[in-house]
Amino acid sequence: MKSILSAWESLCASSGVLRFIDVNLRGIGQVMFQDNPLSGALFLAAIAWGSYAAGVPQVLFGGVVAVVAATLTAQWLHVDKAALRAGLYGFNGFLVGLALATFVAPGPLLWACAILGAAVSVVAMSATVNVARTWGMPALTFPFVLVTWLLLLATYGFAGLAGSALPAAGVVAPFESVAATRLDVGLFVQATLLSISQVFLKGSAVAALLFLAGLAVNSRAAAVAALGGAILAVVTAHLLGAESDLITGGLLGFSPVLTAVALGTVFNRPGLRVAAYAALGTVFTVVAQAAFNVALTPLAIPALTAPFVLVTWMFLLPRKDFEAEAQEVKG
Amino acid sequence: MKSILSAWESLCASSGVLRFIDVNLRGIGQVMFQDNPLSGALFLAAIAWGSYAAGVPQVLFGGVVAVVAATLTAQWLHVDKAALRAGLYGFNGFLVGLALATFVAPGPLLWACAILGAAVSVVAMSATVNVARTWGMPALTFPFVLVTWLLLLATYGFAGLAGSALPAAGVVAPFESVAATRLDVGLFVQATLLSISQVFLKGSAVAALLFLAGLAVNSRAAAVAALGGAILAVVTAHLLGAESDLITGGLLGFSPVLTAVALGTVFNRPGLRVAAYAALGTVFTVVAQAAFNVALTPLAIPALTAPFVLVTWMFLLPRKDFEAEAQEVKG
Amino acid sequence: MKSILSAWESLCASSGVLRFIDVNLRGIGQVMFQDNPLSGALFLAAIAWGSYAAGVPQVLFGGVVAVVAATLTAQWLHVDKAALRAGLYGFNGFLVGLALATFVAPGPLLWACAILGAAVSVVAMSATVNVARTWGMPALTFPFVLVTWLLLLATYGFAGLAGSALPAAGVVAPFESVAATRLDVGLFVQATLLSISQVFLKGSAVAALLFLAGLAVNSRAAAVAALGGAILAVVTAHLLGAESDLITGGLLGFSPVLTAVALGTVFNRPGLRVAAYAALGTVFTVVAQAAFNVALTPLAIPALTAPFVLVTWMFLLPRKDFEAEAQEVKG
Repeated sequence: MKSILSAWESLCASSGVLRFIDVNLRGIGQVMFQDNPLSGALFLAAIAWGSYAAGVPQVLFGGVVAVVAATLTAQWLHVDKAALRAGLYGFNGFLVGLALATFVAPGPLLWACAILGAAVSVVAMSATVNVARTWGMPALTFPFVLVTWLLLLATYGFAGLAGSALPAAGVVAPFESVAATRLDVGLFVQATLLSISQVFLKGSAVAALLFLAGLAVNSRAAAVAALGGAILAVVTAHLLGAESDLITGGLLGFSPVLTAVALGTVFNRPGLRVAAYAALGTVFTVVAQAAFNVALTPLAIPALTAPFVLVTWMFLLPRKDFEAEAQEVKG
Repeated sequence: MKSILSAWESLCASSGVLRFIDVNLRGIGQVMFQDNPLSGALFLAAIAWGSYAAGVPQVLFGGVVAVVAATLTAQWLHVDKAALRAGLYGFNGFLVGLALATFVAPGPLLWACAILGAAVSVVAMSATVNVARTWGMPALTFPFVLVTWLLLLATYGFAGLAGSALPAAGVVAPFESVAATRLDVGLFVQATLLSISQVFLKGSAVAALLFLAGLAVNSRAAAVAALGGAILAVVTAHLLGAESDLITGGLLGFSPVLTAVALGTVFNRPGLRVAAYAALGTVFTVVAQAAFNVALTPLAIPALTAPFVLVTWMFLLPRKDFEAEAQEVKG
Repeated sequence: MKSILSAWESLCASSGVLRFIDVNLRGIGQVMFQDNPLSGALFLAAIAWGSYAAGVPQVLFGGVVAVVAATLTAQWLHVDKAALRAGLYGFNGFLVGLALATFVAPGPLLWACAILGAAVSVVAMSATVNVARTWGMPALTFPFVLVTWLLLLATYGFAGLAGSALPAAGVVAPFESVAATRLDVGLFVQATLLSISQVFLKGSAVAALLFLAGLAVNSRAAAVAALGGAILAVVTAHLLGAESDLITGGLLGFSPVLTAVALGTVFNRPGLRVAAYAALGTVFTVVAQAAFNVALTPLAIPALTAPFVLVTWMFLLPRKDFEAEAQEVKG
């Protein structure tokens, strides 16, 4: 694996085009925190599969157009070069493109808005980095959530953009008890896998396996955390009595998966205490996901990864105390 | 009073169990900024009275379980020891427990969520402290509001949690003029006292007197500010033409009471200028409370103490300018 | 022009009353970032014209009362003198007064609330300045938006305040396609001019010309940016298929106008790159305006200049990166 990557790296060093492709693949990989073009390529393959299988090839196209637009914008704005090369200015744009092409009907204005949104996501990323660094925080997918929410809300105000796959506005109402489906092994496996693939807005078990492969080639710990987070989210949602369709569709699990990977492997050194802490955050992300789903009901837009961003920031911010005190105890 | 407290302090120094009780009582006292176990004990007595009188003993139980869970979590996370001993990692958890047990039907999942919420309130507190210290701001009850809002919103998405005492979702509509009740002396006194007891989500005049006693044993200024804030809030709400039931139930006064105590005694040195400034903040908190009540109507959750947090932060942030310039004028 | 202003300045130096008038006029000028009493006087003339033409003289009165109340509060609070003299503690109060008198029925409680809101806007301004300076950001009209939203929401909870000109609460619903009006030259000019006058909540072409004059006497670049921003906003809204009435009423253009002036002339040195960057921000502000309009539908309050504040902060925050890197490239 390493030899392939170093061969690719030397090819990139000698070719502007390949370097550009490399940056964009890393951008796709950074959706799940992986600074690795191979991870990005496997994630892209998963999205290609998921899009064609679901009969929505425009979603793949939207993502690709948007990540390229984001990278070009980042170059134009002279953002930090190391961050650009690591794909950190691409992943939000990529997600904006996937989300718009998923929720809005195809047409020239969709592509114009995907490019606009991808360009603005770079500005939003740079702004978020500037603010979040005050407390040593990463930007996560906050720029994606902010820009996409604004664009999706705006579809209700413009004739040129039809949010055809957006949820209908509803009234917040007490949970309607339906006969709960038994969560048998097949549904449990499906719920777990789709919780992983929904990170990229896809409901496909095959795509989920490709995503896991993309994680594993760069970080086995991340793959384990993603799988563990998905299982924990499915169990939590089931115990709390969530709607079966949401659970088996992976729609309550994708934010917790990201929380598990972020808290368990990316921003903390893996270990027993960290695993317990990440598990607490993962469980609470299920609650936050349900809360955001409810809170956005009157606005008729999806929660996207906002619950992940909120809970992960909340659980990363105390880190310094946590570690400083821990050392004090040891010392 | 002082001799009792110093005797208690030396007992705590020699016993881990008593120290743990002390920390939890201070946690309860900190709901109204009092770092004093006797204040906490009187507040607890008030809640016990209010809960039994209203036939909801589970509310007392919820608060106690939650404050203990919060203290244990804070110990596990190695938070700052001085802050922990002062009860600063307990009051948000205590309020989470009271609020959940007030709004959600009893059952095993309620207790699980109270413990989860209390544990997460410690993380949220630590996160808020880290962010707020950038501007020298206290965390106030922001962690309580954030965690409780998420849990209450989530009840609408889970069959296992029935938010049986939550308001129904409504549509924002112009104020319906009803024949306004004359606010006679009896109702005025009731409105004032319940504005104090509603800080702990209780509608009981006896509880209010116990809360005032709990304040007075540690700070007479705080007790005066609470009473003055309550009276000012009731008068303001009445002049603006608020619904009589809300006024006499204390539901427009509890946030202003906290604002008055915070701005008038805890974070500013009492005096005439400060009293005028705190009064301005208290009056505007009544407006903010009405605004939050309206804004949360479509989401079917209560405002909790969010208006207090917002207005108090707004009025504390300029403090530096205020004092620096004042000194300049004097100098 | 300069000689008039320096003569005025020496008059102000010798008279407390004239200095007070000067500070209030600059406060009105700062609504569009102009620290110039002549700009303020022309803006005031525009509002006088617009208010009388529309038969709502109380709007002019509300603005004047509020800016005076804000200036007096700022003096009482000993805010930074240079900022006070430049009118930076007046413009938010002025806008609070205009907005309340525009949306709420006249009466003694309206004036009381306009004075309360103006006073609190000074506190909110001071608070926002303290927070925003952490990242070198200006406060913009955030204090106005925050205080006015709270007061407008509160009208639904108080019998004494009737929000008679507020929008009715609605349900978010897909855009209803109506036969789009052709945007002929007359309507295009009207849409452009009203986009400028709506910065001050006025729908009047004559007022717009006075606003442009007020800008031009202090900064021709600002006048050009306002006009360019209005044209760009109208074209963008039209291409996206916004409702014709909103476009020709200037209701999708006032926030973009402010963004164009802020990003294109006030906070960046004018130039080609900056113009392109400001244009991107201006276009996205149209999207944000539509998004806020939709998001506030269930709450039955207007978006005010919130879209301008959000997008301008987002586009100002990366500035340091932007310039630092640009210098690096040159160097």
